[in-house]
Amino acid sequence: MYHFRNDYSEGAHPSVLRALAETNLEQTCGYGLDHYCEEAAERIRQLCGAPNADVHFVVGGTQANLLTIHSFLHSFEAVIAAETAHVNVHETGAIELTGHKVIAVPSPDGKLTPALVDGVVSTHSSEHMVHPRLVYISDSTEVGTVYTKAELTALREYCLAQNLFLYLDGARLGSALALPDSDVTLSDLCALTDAFYIGGTKNGALFGEALVLLNDFVKPNFRSYMKQRGAMLAKGRLLGLQFGELLRDGLYLDLARHANAMAAPLREGIAARGYGFAFPSPTNQLFPILPDSLIARLQENYTFDVDQPMGDGLTCIRLVTSWATQPEAVDAFLADL
Amino acid sequence: MYHFRNDYSEGAHPSVLRALAETNLEQTCGYGLDHYCEEAAERIRQLCGAPNADVHFVVGGTQANLLTIHSFLHSFEAVIAAETAHVNVHETGAIELTGHKVIAVPSPDGKLTPALVDGVVSTHSSEHMVHPRLVYISDSTEVGTVYTKAELTALREYCLAQNLFLYLDGARLGSALALPDSDVTLSDLCALTDAFYIGGTKNGALFGEALVLLNDFVKPNFRSYMKQRGAMLAKGRLLGLQFGELLRDGLYLDLARHANAMAAPLREGIAARGYGFAFPSPTNQLFPILPDSLIARLQENYTFDVDQPMGDGLTCIRLVTSWATQPEAVDAFLADL
Amino acid sequence: MYHFRNDYSEGAHPSVLRALAETNLEQTCGYGLDHYCEEAAERIRQLCGAPNADVHFVVGGTQANLLTIHSFLHSFEAVIAAETAHVNVHETGAIELTGHKVIAVPSPDGKLTPALVDGVVSTHSSEHMVHPRLVYISDSTEVGTVYTKAELTALREYCLAQNLFLYLDGARLGSALALPDSDVTLSDLCALTDAFYIGGTKNGALFGEALVLLNDFVKPNFRSYMKQRGAMLAKGRLLGLQFGELLRDGLYLDLARHANAMAAPLREGIAARGYGFAFPSPTNQLFPILPDSLIARLQENYTFDVDQPMGDGLTCIRLVTSWATQPEAVDAFLADL
Amino acid sequence: MYHFRNDYSEGAHPSVLRALAETNLEQTCGYGLDHYCEEAAERIRQLCGAPNADVHFVVGGTQANLLTIHSFLHSFEAVIAAETAHVNVHETGAIELTGHKVIAVPSPDGKLTPALVDGVVSTHSSEHMVHPRLVYISDSTEVGTVYTKAELTALREYCLAQNLFLYLDGARLGSALALPDSDVTLSDLCALTDAFYIGGTKNGALFGEALVLLNDFVKPNFRSYMKQRGAMLAKGRLLGLQFGELLRDGLYLDLARHANAMAAPLREGIAARGYGFAFPSPTNQLFPILPDSLIARLQENYTFDVDQPMGDGLTCIRLVTSWATQPEAVDAFLADL
Repeated sequence: MYHFRNDYSEGAHPSVLRALAETNLEQTCGYGLDHYCEEAAERIRQLCGAPNADVHFVVGGTQANLLTIHSFLHSFEAVIAAETAHVNVHETGAIELTGHKVIAVPSPDGKLTPALVDGVVSTHSSEHMVHPRLVYISDSTEVGTVYTKAELTALREYCLAQNLFLYLDGARLGSALALPDSDVTLSDLCALTDAFYIGGTKNGALFGEALVLLNDFVKPNFRSYMKQRGAMLAKGRLLGLQFGELLRDGLYLDLARHANAMAAPLREGIAARGYGFAFPSPTNQLFPILPDSLIARLQENYTFDVDQPMGDGLTCIRLVTSWATQPEAVDAFLADL
Repeated sequence: MYHFRNDYSEGAHPSVLRALAETNLEQTCGYGLDHYCEEAAERIRQLCGAPNADVHFVVGGTQANLLTIHSFLHSFEAVIAAETAHVNVHETGAIELTGHKVIAVPSPDGKLTPALVDGVVSTHSSEHMVHPRLVYISDSTEVGTVYTKAELTALREYCLAQNLFLYLDGARLGSALALPDSDVTLSDLCALTDAFYIGGTKNGALFGEALVLLNDFVKPNFRSYMKQRGAMLAKGRLLGLQFGELLRDGLYLDLARHANAMAAPLREGIAARGYGFAFPSPTNQLFPILPDSLIARLQENYTFDVDQPMGDGLTCIRLVTSWATQPEAVDAFLADL
Repeated sequence: MYHFRNDYSEGAHPSVLRALAETNLEQTCGYGLDHYCEEAAERIRQLCGAPNADVHFVVGGTQANLLTIHSFLHSFEAVIAAETAHVNVHETGAIELTGHKVIAVPSPDGKLTPALVDGVVSTHSSEHMVHPRLVYISDSTEVGTVYTKAELTALREYCLAQNLFLYLDGARLGSALALPDSDVTLSDLCALTDAFYIGGTKNGALFGEALVLLNDFVKPNFRSYMKQRGAMLAKGRLLGLQFGELLRDGLYLDLARHANAMAAPLREGIAARGYGFAFPSPTNQLFPILPDSLIARLQENYTFDVDQPMGDGLTCIRLVTSWATQPEAVDAFLADL
Repeated sequence: MYHFRNDYSEGAHPSVLRALAETNLEQTCGYGLDHYCEEAAERIRQLCGAPNADVHFVVGGTQANLLTIHSFLHSFEAVIAAETAHVNVHETGAIELTGHKVIAVPSPDGKLTPALVDGVVSTHSSEHMVHPRLVYISDSTEVGTVYTKAELTALREYCLAQNLFLYLDGARLGSALALPDSDVTLSDLCALTDAFYIGGTKNGALFGEALVLLNDFVKPNFRSYMKQRGAMLAKGRLLGLQFGELLRDGLYLDLARHANAMAAPLREGIAARGYGFAFPSPTNQLFPILPDSLIARLQENYTFDVDQPMGDGLTCIRLVTSWATQPEAVDAFLADL
């Protein structure tokens, strides 16, 4: 049985494990105040060209999202997100538990545009309504699509004009940035968002996300928010250490490139067999629409998410490749197809 | 300037004011433990044929909704409501502030059906999603429509089958029950919901809503929830006293009947002039679609909500009549139309 | 049976009722945006000599406290209050439900001093601890004592030096300001606090508290907080109208003076009979320590709170007088004593 | 510079690291549903003699505490804890952020007794007060002391009689259970508490706490609470794997025994030099009271927490040993003393 179910089925890249082993008995102070975290944060600031950014490391994406969103908002302020957004569907109401409404916007490709956001903003003018205040996007999105620099710039300009914060969930940021034709850089994200995170869990770390806070509004006291939510790791060093490894010599993008490269033959092979896709994903998540009988047969040897019925005996599934996906597994899958 | 903006523009029915004055210097204990509240609660139980119901009085509808919904739900459980539901759009995120997601369902007439609810339930099976647990409906709805007994029964059966609570917001319950062809009674609501409230603010009280709790799950400690939310009125007697008056000799339904009766000539007069309505409301809220130029002219003498543009120089407005609406005002409006 | 249990046993001063009746059928817009609220707010600003203050009216004290405190604080910030403070003991955890710790400080007389507050501040320096940020005081306090202007000034200076907000709960503000030897005015409170409220429920209104916001930090969006908590009264006019009456021609202080004047003979009579008091209250709440047998006998004709056992067959009770207390009741009580 | 600051200065026991490395590329499903978690949970149930216990793994102690406490309580219910309790002072108000008051009880040794708890329960009978519902204890406590089986039994009996839950924070459970004269076992904890956790972070794991839920009340849906709080680790396997190693062949108690054994010479050496201790701790945390000048000198070579001034030029510090503390470091410290 081979898992195409997600990009966190395996452990960490060997260099991460090696670093953990080599430093295991070194004593450091706790809670992310150690030199590994400081160095990793500094490296991120350099890679981003953002010397004033605050960088914090947390264990997982839901933590990153709820911490950041909550720190930006007053209790009556709301989030605008695509209907497929992780914060809307797959965090068991984590954002609402912090008190904030998530206003879900149907989107054909999992992305938001100024027009889609404006559809919410223009109908929320009464003081009896929540105040939309933060736009949540993900890149790559939950359906595998990516933003161009022009699209991000347009969103940013709209947000600035409407006094909205723009936050980018980078759980799968690597797969977006590593695309050959991507025109977005970390530096662009610093110019175009108020905060974003660089996902480690799904790209070579055991766990960990690096939050990059750009807007001064949320910088003070962010550690207090973290501690209060149980999101400050005692041995915080583990997070800095992992990002230190991943961000050395371009490893982070190399791993994402591998994930994308493993998806490519799957995409082509499936298309060549005449099957369509629910979303036009160039990244490491694919959403092919397959006959139910074929799906049942594939499930004998592979695991993957069964996403939604598409009618006529067809169903959309999700295949995910990762930094650890083996080419042989891809070949075998295509052969079985 | 005459207000058709809402049904709480005026004070209270004279008999309510008289009761307040007559009892003004009587000493009672506070917080709703006085004999007026006890008597009003008992009267409600009798009118409902529900001797085991718990009855609590609160000042307003948002309080009633947030208290009741919160008391039914675990933090990861969610509300299903029509997109137009008060809890979804007009309470500034009050339900989300208690931690719960409101899943909004588009509905052509502001009502929910088993099929609409099932569209949510059937797609929320993962433990990474909120658990839909309570169905919120209002009667009459925010767009003036009403449920038949058959419709409520079908919803109730679906909810029981799916282990969902059914809660009915009765801010404008009077206008629904007072319709000549209504086949729903208070007693039916006790059989068909887990909780509902009888709205006083919009039907003759200075303020006040009478919550009727039917499901034993939320009965214990409800007063603690009230106190904790600042929803326990010190001079609670004022609430019991008002409901005592409104529920004596059918006054409550008489007042609602008046509100409906004042809406009828408006509805007919507008239709006779060839204008349509956005929603088929038989109650005291009307949603006519009028030319913008006509609206501007009407606004010289009348206030009303301007609801939404409908294209082609037409806009939907909302006209509301109440227990206090004067026939002369209705006549004048139609003349001006 | 005569109630000395609290100062909200009766209804409202007759002039309040009269105003409600006279304006009953006047149509106004809802939610506190009417001219009665505007006029009452303006009168308060004038009485306070605080033209830039924001004034909001809410129904009760717990609402006033939780709204104001929550609006001042980030989620990790805490309140410092006397152990006897209403927010610490008698609001069923309302402040904690908004997410904030109340750090309770033992105080012999229900008042806070710079030294008492500093005992908390100086031991809360770690980022793993809550950040004390708001000092809550009440005047008159929950045990009937009052602050002098010098005491308030000292607290204020300490708070400014330590970057703490100072909030004053004025549920029984009238009884403090109306004392013959009080040197505190509304104008002083505006200079010395960040926010306070003028209590109506316990001094002649049917209900209602007038919040005076002085610090610009919490002025924007306060109405959104109110709506979200269910604290925006639909017929908001009722609140403005009542405060309009109470603040006309000094009625508010006259009523408080009466309450204090009714307590004076009780205080003297009890002392003359050789009984002590748990707290040195000059206001309308008295805490005599009486033999249990005497208490039992008094309970045949009077109601009052039984506060706490004091040992040796003695118990502290609470007697409260109000704007409506009748001299004959006081005489009778003393006779029965 | 050697750290005696805490018991999480180093990484993990080598066998934990080895297991991580050996299984690194094995594909498992996420979120703690893998076989490593299942096996570790089953091992815990066996060690506990509690076949019906639910076991969940979370990353840290604050998460464990806030999740468990919140899942036990209605919003108006409160926690009783010693003033020194971690949930009271060192979680930045995490419990209050879930809505619950922590009622802090002064205790000379960081432990609670039925009498101390009853002091709270007996004074919280009004519905205007929070309802004390859960007793939080830690073992070993924040000041290094431990409970005997008789003490736990007495607390449990009191809690059962008063309808209180009993929850034990086991962040440093190992050091308590590993004491030579301890008469408490995991099996006892299952009989005597409603929930507790076995701390991994401070006893040989990279991170991780194993929650043992015994009361059926909180078993359903606990994973939903976890996910909603961002406390469900994507690669949940990492937690099961670590506990699998720690609980094999008694390693967990062996490591705790080492920590205690490293504290013993420190305790004796300090006492032999004539210094006292603020708390009588037999475990791996020591609270000696030393002259300020000596402390300053020790700080040249060692780090430790400076706890509180004790007057007369003396200060209480905290020294912590761990599974990784080297005997040479202890010797050196004593020599420097």
